[in-house]
Amino acid sequence: MPHIPLPEHLPGITGLLEYSQDTAQPIRELTQFLLRGENTLSAGERELIATIVSHNNECKFCTSAHTAAADLLLGESKTCKIIKQDIDKAEISEKMKALLKIAKMVQKSGKSVTKEAIELAKNNGATDLEIHDTVLIAGLFCLYNRYVDGLASVTPADPGFYEYLGERIVNHGYNRLPQGYDHLKNK
Amino acid sequence: MPHIPLPEHLPGITGLLEYSQDTAQPIRELTQFLLRGENTLSAGERELIATIVSHNNECKFCTSAHTAAADLLLGESKTCKIIKQDIDKAEISEKMKALLKIAKMVQKSGKSVTKEAIELAKNNGATDLEIHDTVLIAGLFCLYNRYVDGLASVTPADPGFYEYLGERIVNHGYNRLPQGYDHLKNK
Repeated sequence: MPHIPLPEHLPGITGLLEYSQDTAQPIRELTQFLLRGENTLSAGERELIATIVSHNNECKFCTSAHTAAADLLLGESKTCKIIKQDIDKAEISEKMKALLKIAKMVQKSGKSVTKEAIELAKNNGATDLEIHDTVLIAGLFCLYNRYVDGLASVTPADPGFYEYLGERIVNHGYNRLPQGYDHLKNK
Repeated sequence: MPHIPLPEHLPGITGLLEYSQDTAQPIRELTQFLLRGENTLSAGERELIATIVSHNNECKFCTSAHTAAADLLLGESKTCKIIKQDIDKAEISEKMKALLKIAKMVQKSGKSVTKEAIELAKNNGATDLEIHDTVLIAGLFCLYNRYVDGLASVTPADPGFYEYLGERIVNHGYNRLPQGYDHLKNK
């Protein structure tokens, strides 16, 4: 049961963004810009960053939702599975491997990020802005994971829920949906 | 030296918010609303939450800046000093002690927040919204601390810098300052 009364039909982050709409608006804007805005990293690559950070923070809700989104965007589910175990074994670019390693360091703490990790990313072609965005996305998910679990919001057990949510954030992004969308879903 | 080229005259978070203005805007709005918006927690109490989280994340820049802001708002520097050592010894309300303990748990992870900690806060008069805001402020500073240290932004050694920054965020909040403010400061 959540620590505060949240809308029962909206689990995880969805109920929190409804509970506090004044804070939800800038959180949505920041996420939309970072994960869906114009970027030399693809939306799928950025969802991998969200996934690895949420996984290492052991936030089941966010890990399941962003794994579903990344799987859809990448068109396969192998990469998400592998990066949670061993980034080096994934079939992704060396640049992406280096960026995911930086994201994992940020998950622990800002100070954990080493010069060597940054150099590895740069040597594999990461731009300053890509490094910046990786660190900020990782920081943003440290916020999200704590928001979702710190208030004990509901984590649905049904995998179908995350498929629905993954589809929603792939097709509609992180902005607030027009009213009625959730009703349509149930038809 | 920062991991990416940041404006040299703007240390810590200030250079990052200038480097990436599109992401800075929603981050500023979220912070302004959470730390300065209408709230049953005073601005000083909310700066204590920012301070304890930054301190536990060992982010010197943010700890120094928000300690300076809290000290100014509270009109004394004892409380900030004491809460970093032992929250129970501070001369603050039992409600604030309970909320700061929740913030410390959130700093570790969302899952660290216990039912008992939430009950203690509620039994001491904390509202659902105060608990919500405490968790979200703590989450936000987990983002800030990782952003500032994850990119190795500059941490000035001069205590005078944080007095200036504390004064600035007390008197002007977290919105972007009009151009020219920083020049005036140096006159």
